[in-house]
Amino acid sequence: QAETSVTLYGLIDAGLVYQRGKVGRTDGARPQYGGDYQSRLSTGANQQSGSRWGLRGSEDLGDGLRAIFVLESGFSPTTGRSGQSDRLFGRQATLGLAHDAYGRIDLGRQKNVASNFLKGIDPFELDFLQATAGTAFSAANSVRYDNAILYHTPVWGGFQAAVGYSFEFDQDRTLPGAFENDEKNRAVTAGLRYASGPLEVALTYDQQFRHPSAPQPKQAILGAAYDLEVLKISAAYGYTKDGLLSGQDIDLVAGRNNPNTPARGTGTTNQDFTWKGLTVHSYLVGLSAPVGASGKVLGSYQRADPNKNLSATDVYSLGYLHDLSKRTNLYAFASYANRAAFVYGNKMTTVGVGLRHRF
Amino acid sequence: QAETSVTLYGLIDAGLVYQRGKVGRTDGARPQYGGDYQSRLSTGANQQSGSRWGLRGSEDLGDGLRAIFVLESGFSPTTGRSGQSDRLFGRQATLGLAHDAYGRIDLGRQKNVASNFLKGIDPFELDFLQATAGTAFSAANSVRYDNAILYHTPVWGGFQAAVGYSFEFDQDRTLPGAFENDEKNRAVTAGLRYASGPLEVALTYDQQFRHPSAPQPKQAILGAAYDLEVLKISAAYGYTKDGLLSGQDIDLVAGRNNPNTPARGTGTTNQDFTWKGLTVHSYLVGLSAPVGASGKVLGSYQRADPNKNLSATDVYSLGYLHDLSKRTNLYAFASYANRAAFVYGNKMTTVGVGLRHRF
Amino acid sequence: QAETSVTLYGLIDAGLVYQRGKVGRTDGARPQYGGDYQSRLSTGANQQSGSRWGLRGSEDLGDGLRAIFVLESGFSPTTGRSGQSDRLFGRQATLGLAHDAYGRIDLGRQKNVASNFLKGIDPFELDFLQATAGTAFSAANSVRYDNAILYHTPVWGGFQAAVGYSFEFDQDRTLPGAFENDEKNRAVTAGLRYASGPLEVALTYDQQFRHPSAPQPKQAILGAAYDLEVLKISAAYGYTKDGLLSGQDIDLVAGRNNPNTPARGTGTTNQDFTWKGLTVHSYLVGLSAPVGASGKVLGSYQRADPNKNLSATDVYSLGYLHDLSKRTNLYAFASYANRAAFVYGNKMTTVGVGLRHRF
Repeated sequence: QAETSVTLYGLIDAGLVYQRGKVGRTDGARPQYGGDYQSRLSTGANQQSGSRWGLRGSEDLGDGLRAIFVLESGFSPTTGRSGQSDRLFGRQATLGLAHDAYGRIDLGRQKNVASNFLKGIDPFELDFLQATAGTAFSAANSVRYDNAILYHTPVWGGFQAAVGYSFEFDQDRTLPGAFENDEKNRAVTAGLRYASGPLEVALTYDQQFRHPSAPQPKQAILGAAYDLEVLKISAAYGYTKDGLLSGQDIDLVAGRNNPNTPARGTGTTNQDFTWKGLTVHSYLVGLSAPVGASGKVLGSYQRADPNKNLSATDVYSLGYLHDLSKRTNLYAFASYANRAAFVYGNKMTTVGVGLRHRF
Repeated sequence: QAETSVTLYGLIDAGLVYQRGKVGRTDGARPQYGGDYQSRLSTGANQQSGSRWGLRGSEDLGDGLRAIFVLESGFSPTTGRSGQSDRLFGRQATLGLAHDAYGRIDLGRQKNVASNFLKGIDPFELDFLQATAGTAFSAANSVRYDNAILYHTPVWGGFQAAVGYSFEFDQDRTLPGAFENDEKNRAVTAGLRYASGPLEVALTYDQQFRHPSAPQPKQAILGAAYDLEVLKISAAYGYTKDGLLSGQDIDLVAGRNNPNTPARGTGTTNQDFTWKGLTVHSYLVGLSAPVGASGKVLGSYQRADPNKNLSATDVYSLGYLHDLSKRTNLYAFASYANRAAFVYGNKMTTVGVGLRHRF
Repeated sequence: QAETSVTLYGLIDAGLVYQRGKVGRTDGARPQYGGDYQSRLSTGANQQSGSRWGLRGSEDLGDGLRAIFVLESGFSPTTGRSGQSDRLFGRQATLGLAHDAYGRIDLGRQKNVASNFLKGIDPFELDFLQATAGTAFSAANSVRYDNAILYHTPVWGGFQAAVGYSFEFDQDRTLPGAFENDEKNRAVTAGLRYASGPLEVALTYDQQFRHPSAPQPKQAILGAAYDLEVLKISAAYGYTKDGLLSGQDIDLVAGRNNPNTPARGTGTTNQDFTWKGLTVHSYLVGLSAPVGASGKVLGSYQRADPNKNLSATDVYSLGYLHDLSKRTNLYAFASYANRAAFVYGNKMTTVGVGLRHRF
């Protein structure tokens, strides 16, 4: 064993968060919380980035081939608990082979393509609680799949493609007695990215194959960002069918319109939701701009507009980052979500400040 | 990422422990164990110190300011399981800022002030199973809070003050439907310490704010130690009201007088116990003395004397430490608890030996 | 703390596995899966070796004495979850003392002697799913005990002996109300090994002491391997009484003959099984041979032949290893088990390929 081949790294993000919200008349959480405004101030974990510690390494096997691995453990710094449903390496656990000419293949638990390729297009980099573009674009909501194989091409003239498949994306959601492949919850993920000079464009497609009789949620996203140096602007459009791939869990609200009528959808629009025939059009416009040598301001507006008499969610977000060093920064952000989780009357304001440190 | 900035450290403590005890007539564990003496010899984990591995780091941000973090994972070396209710970093998970002139602020999961400030006053350093001063002084019983902010002043002429607040000290004990701050279990912790030359004095105050209708346990502790070089003597007094902050879990006994009468207190006096109007007077006298170049003998007597017709717990403890190197030592200790967990007839003798290694 | 004293190491093993099987008429899994052939292709974790990361260290205490520790965390790279029933350091957590002249004593969670001493005799090194010799020899099926003390003699002229005891080998299987030693599940493990030049011989004995009224499974194993350089041959015989120490969990089949008749055994023959009066004769013949500079072919046939009208399990296995570097290799293997888990009609074919990387 050569100890030198492995890098131990990590990130901790902790701060304070103020939340104030209201639960709409048809939201599933109304019986629990009532309809008045509720608010709280508490510690805020993982607002800008998920806290993690990890091990990663690379070994040169000759002829342009490398063995590569990442073991990345997510946790909450405010409770010390493991994240990702109490997985040890819940953020990523992959072993792979990379070749200069033929690309890279990774096997294990990992993020889908959309959650990687759209990170650079969302000014909030798919983070900051409800401000993430994942609120409107569920396939980019840091979706992670167990038992996945993901292939990335090399970068050719700025272009890179990726395609992946998960044999069983979460065993906790597998029905008892499932053995054969088509009895498992599977997923396909694919994307194409172009990045050159100031321009970045990403196109992704995700589809889940759930238990045989369940709807199969799918989403296509097209996003682009252009860096004018004084300002970086971005925009994205997404089309969703038959369900959300991974809803954004906004505290307080639940979202399901009618929990007693499964014909009106399964699950909660706040987390995991399928409904045969559901379509959602998602939009994002965003900007970010440097402020002085160590500051950066972020802003975005996103909308997810569903059919089926659900209401369109609007989210307005503003943030500020301030570097204390290369590895440490402060942040502050505010976000207002109206008709959160597709329910009229749901409102949620989130204001957070925090410190992020990488090692 | 600079790998050099992080220190990986740890401690393992494993040995053997013999326990012999008897369950009193009014103890809640009587139906389970009966009233005869029971005994066992088994492996002993974490007798002198909690086993742990951790990552800690510090980054100089200039102008006397530093970013600091600690991620400390507790475990049992005899089972390999995580401690602290299966948290990954259950001992500590904090990110903070420290300044030479303004003090230090830490955010995350961490110990309360009493468990830090009284460590140097208890000859058993708040460890060694039932021998810990935490048996009589529940606020110093290595209490750890989630979602806590803790501020320490710099040390001024030997004095240091600390004050902290937890927004929700253990989510597992939060009632369903709690969203606002005053629906959570919160806690305040504060203390003042003086250490100079041979003298160390600590004064602490802890209070928990539990579910709105529950009693709010609180404890004040005053402790002092004086090092005469051939002998270090210590003494402490504590005053508790309305409940224990974190009972000392002594195997075999449970402690609750009458599980069917909640009006006579909630929880078990062995672990977590509240009772409106309960008061406890706690006393400790202790000594430690070097023996030769690498040995040290420890002794303490502690008493926790409650009202409400509960019985006073007495604990007599004796220990010996022997250094094999700077990082490794052997230990042996014996402790006898009478009327453990405030129940007449409860008796528990614990005798342990072990090896402790730090890395 | 001296950071240099600890080594961080690990191994990741991930690939693909194809399984095709059939559930016999009297197998307990028949109601769930039916009796037709079922098959699947999925990601394969830990086929050649259990994925792990760990910390280990050694400190010289003088006079030939060293403090030694191992903390080894098992996980699945395809899900990121901890292995060994979600233990953090489930593979091993030990603190010990080693002396050049007097041997080594380790305290904590660790493997039994058979699982160590027979590793070099099984061509598949007690791994590769159903191909492991652990399928026929349950005491060598990577059995791990909590709360264990294990003593190894030094190696004297090629001979080494080991003996160990576990006070409570798995708390999850302890009955409520157990306090005294003989109310716990305990185990004894012992062995003698000779290794010199081309010859390796191992003799082991394991016995478990389960809940007072339960059968006490025991197994003795004698194995030997001889390295002819162009070929290494091995053979082993095992005698089992009153139950399996740790069954090999083969997916799809369960194995219990008659779940409604506890008089016919307790547990499932696929995992954990006791039956007063059960005897099993186990046989293994194996070979391995180098192929060129970086390849190795493995083969084994094993049989476990029980009484009590259960059926004999036969397992035929073939494997190939190919080194890409000292730390990284590819593997492929195929194994066919007939009458798996002692049930006539149970058949399971497993074919796996994968990549294993050590760091």
